[in-house]
Amino acid sequence: MALVVQKYGGTSVGTVEKLRNVVERVLEYYREGNQLVVVLSAMAGQTDALIKLAGQICNDPDPRELDVLMATGEQASVALFAMAVKSMGYDARSLLGFQVAIHTDHLYGKARIHEIDTTRITNELKKGRILAVAGFQGLDDEGNITTLGRGGSDTTAVALAAALNADVCEIYTDVQGVFTTDPNICPKARKMDYISYDEMLELASLGAKVLEIRSVEFAKKYNVPIHVRSTFSRERGTMVVAETKDMEKVLVSGVAYNKNEARITVRKVPDRPGTAALIFEPMFAAGIVVDMIVQNTSEDGTTDLTFTVPKADFEKSLKLVSEVAREIKAEKVLGDENIAKVSIVGVGMRNHAGVAQKMFKVLANENINITMISTSEIKISCVIEDKYTELAVRVLHEAFGLENGPTEDC
Amino acid sequence: MALVVQKYGGTSVGTVEKLRNVVERVLEYYREGNQLVVVLSAMAGQTDALIKLAGQICNDPDPRELDVLMATGEQASVALFAMAVKSMGYDARSLLGFQVAIHTDHLYGKARIHEIDTTRITNELKKGRILAVAGFQGLDDEGNITTLGRGGSDTTAVALAAALNADVCEIYTDVQGVFTTDPNICPKARKMDYISYDEMLELASLGAKVLEIRSVEFAKKYNVPIHVRSTFSRERGTMVVAETKDMEKVLVSGVAYNKNEARITVRKVPDRPGTAALIFEPMFAAGIVVDMIVQNTSEDGTTDLTFTVPKADFEKSLKLVSEVAREIKAEKVLGDENIAKVSIVGVGMRNHAGVAQKMFKVLANENINITMISTSEIKISCVIEDKYTELAVRVLHEAFGLENGPTEDC
Repeated sequence: MALVVQKYGGTSVGTVEKLRNVVERVLEYYREGNQLVVVLSAMAGQTDALIKLAGQICNDPDPRELDVLMATGEQASVALFAMAVKSMGYDARSLLGFQVAIHTDHLYGKARIHEIDTTRITNELKKGRILAVAGFQGLDDEGNITTLGRGGSDTTAVALAAALNADVCEIYTDVQGVFTTDPNICPKARKMDYISYDEMLELASLGAKVLEIRSVEFAKKYNVPIHVRSTFSRERGTMVVAETKDMEKVLVSGVAYNKNEARITVRKVPDRPGTAALIFEPMFAAGIVVDMIVQNTSEDGTTDLTFTVPKADFEKSLKLVSEVAREIKAEKVLGDENIAKVSIVGVGMRNHAGVAQKMFKVLANENINITMISTSEIKISCVIEDKYTELAVRVLHEAFGLENGPTEDC
Repeated sequence: MALVVQKYGGTSVGTVEKLRNVVERVLEYYREGNQLVVVLSAMAGQTDALIKLAGQICNDPDPRELDVLMATGEQASVALFAMAVKSMGYDARSLLGFQVAIHTDHLYGKARIHEIDTTRITNELKKGRILAVAGFQGLDDEGNITTLGRGGSDTTAVALAAALNADVCEIYTDVQGVFTTDPNICPKARKMDYISYDEMLELASLGAKVLEIRSVEFAKKYNVPIHVRSTFSRERGTMVVAETKDMEKVLVSGVAYNKNEARITVRKVPDRPGTAALIFEPMFAAGIVVDMIVQNTSEDGTTDLTFTVPKADFEKSLKLVSEVAREIKAEKVLGDENIAKVSIVGVGMRNHAGVAQKMFKVLANENINITMISTSEIKISCVIEDKYTELAVRVLHEAFGLENGPTEDC
C-alpha cells in the first residue's frame, strides 16, 4: 500500500467527460490498495473567465478579493470530483485550503506555503476516504484566503506530498513527460525516464512549461519524487528525482529555448563602481525581472552592458534605461526584440570540459551568430537571432546525441 | 450612526451593472456615517447553473459536496462586491461563512444557524470597513461547509443583525415591499407600511415569497426589525416588526393564495385510534409535507379524512395512501389537483368574532364552493376550485377593505 498524491490540471478536468476519466483513473489506484490525495485545478477556462469577470468590475481588482474570487474555481472542481466518486459507491471528501489547512504568507496572488497541517487528511485517509484537495489556494494567519499564483496547484501537490511523506507525487498533464527538447520543433525529441531536480529547475526556468518552477524547488528541498505523466495514457512518464551517479555520465540532458525575451545594450558606460546598480535600480523598482546580464571588461574607461528582459517589459525598460544612460553619460542604448535564448542543460557538464566549446562549434557550423553567453554549473545559454531558434535546437539535440537513451555518452 | 445589515438577492446582483447599483446604494449609507454589513446572494442564475453542473456529474449529488459547490456562488458575489467598493476608494472586505464564522448544524443543504461569532466583524467595522458577508453558507463543528437552503441569505442577514444587535436589517428585493395581496391579480393591492412577525410568517408560509420563512422566525425570536424594500427605488418599503396594539385594530392584513397543493380524500376510514397515524406514516417516511388535514366526526363508525400535499408529491402520495387504504379497509381514495388555498391573515381576528363567517359569505356570494377549511389564531384558509382563485382573492381584498390604509376598520 502506497500513499500517492496525484495532481490533475485544468485541461484534465475541463469537461464532465474528462472529469469522469480522472475519477476512473483515481479509482484504479484506490482499488489496488493505495491511499489517494488528489489535487485539482480549476476546470480549464474557469480561471480566465473569473479574471475577465473581475475586469468588468474594475481595472485593478483588489488582490485579496481577487484571491477570494479565484479560489472558487478549484472549490468547484473538488466538489464535483468528490460527488462523482461518491456516486460510484466509494467514499470521498473535498478539502479546501482552509480545511486542510494549508498555511501561507499573506502575499495575495503569489502566496508561499509555510506549513501544512496533516491532521485532518491523515484522519480522513484512515477512514478509507479518497481526498480531493483544492489546489492553488491557502490561508494566511489572519484567516484570509490566498492563492499561490499560476501553476500553484503543482506546488500544492508537491507540498502535500512532502508534508504527508507520500511515496510519490504524480503530476498529470497533457504531455507524456519531460522531453529532451520540444517535440514540436525537433521530431527526434525523446521522453526522459529520469531527470534531476536541478536539471528540471533549469529547464522549467528556461521555458519548458511542464512543471511550475516553485513546485520543483519544493520537491528538491524535501526530496519528493515527482512523476510527470499523461492524463490520457497509462504509460510511465518522467521521474523527477534527486541526482544520482548515473546521471553524471550524461553530459547534456536537454535543450531548451525561450523566445519571450528582448535584449538591451548600453554602449560605452563609464566604468566606475555603482554604475550597474544605477542602471538596474529603476527596473527593479518597476518589478521588471532582468534575466541574463553580460558586461565586458573595459579598456578605454568605458564598458558595454547587455541584458535581457521579458518582451512584455521591453518598451518600459528601454525608456527607464535611456533616462539613466543620459544621467550617467553613456553613449547610447540599443534594443533588439528579435532574439532567442537557446540552452543546454545537464548535471554531467559539471565534471566535463569542452561542452561549451562543442555548443559554440555546432552553432558556428550553421552560421548562427552568438550575441550573448551565460553559464551556470549545469547550463550554458546562448542568445541568437530568433529566426535560427528551431535550427539551433535541432542541431544541438543531434550533436549531443539526445535522441539516444541516457546510457550513451557523446 | 447606525449599524445596518443589508441583504441583496440574486436579481439585485445579477449583472455587473446591477452590482454597481448596489455598491452605489451601500456607499450612500456609508457616507451618511452608518456602519454596513452587506449580505449577498449568488448572482441570479448562478445557483441553478451549479445545480445543473452537479446534475451532469451524477443523479443524486452527495449533499456535503453539493454544499461545497453551491457556496462558490456567494463567494464570487462578495469578492466582486468588495473589489468594486475598493476600486471606488472605500475600504471593504469580503467574509465567507467560515471566516465570520457562522456556525451551523451539519444538515447539508438545509443547515440551521447555531451561533455567529461577531469578533471579526466587529473588529473590521471599527476599522471603518464595509463588510460583504456571503449569504446562505455556514460551517459545521467539524469545519465542513454547509448551506442554509433556498432563501438562506435572508436568514444569514437576520441572524447577523440579531448577533450584532443591528439597528435594522434591510432586505432588498425586486418588489416595493409586502402587499396586502398579489398585485398581479388584484390591482388594488396596497403596500403595507408595517406588518407583524406573525402575520408575515403566515403570509410567507402561504406562498407570498417576499421573505424566507425561517428568517422571519429568527427575526421574531430576536426582535430584529426587518425592512423589506426595493433595490431599484429609494422609497420606504414594509417594516416587519413585533406586534403593536395598533395592529390589532385591523381585522385582516392580507389575502394570500397557494396553487401548489393537491387534495387527497380517504373515504370511509374505519374510525378507531391509530388510523390517522397509519395513513400518514408512509408519507412522513418519504419526506412528504402534509399541509391541511381535516377529519369529520363519524356517525356510522367510519370517517372521511382529507388533506393536502404539494402537487409535486401528489402521485407518490396517492400511491402510498392507496396501499394503506387497502390494508385498513377504507372505502376508496380520491384525489384532486385542481384546487387552490385562499387565506386571510390578521392579528386583529384574535379578538374579533365573525371574520370567518364574513369570509364564507363573501365566497358564497360569488358561488365559490369551499371544500376544506382550516384556521389558526390569526389565519383562515379555505380550499376552493383553482379556477376561482383570482376572483376569490379580489372579492376578499375588497370585502375586508384592504385597499384602504390600516387606520380603517371594517
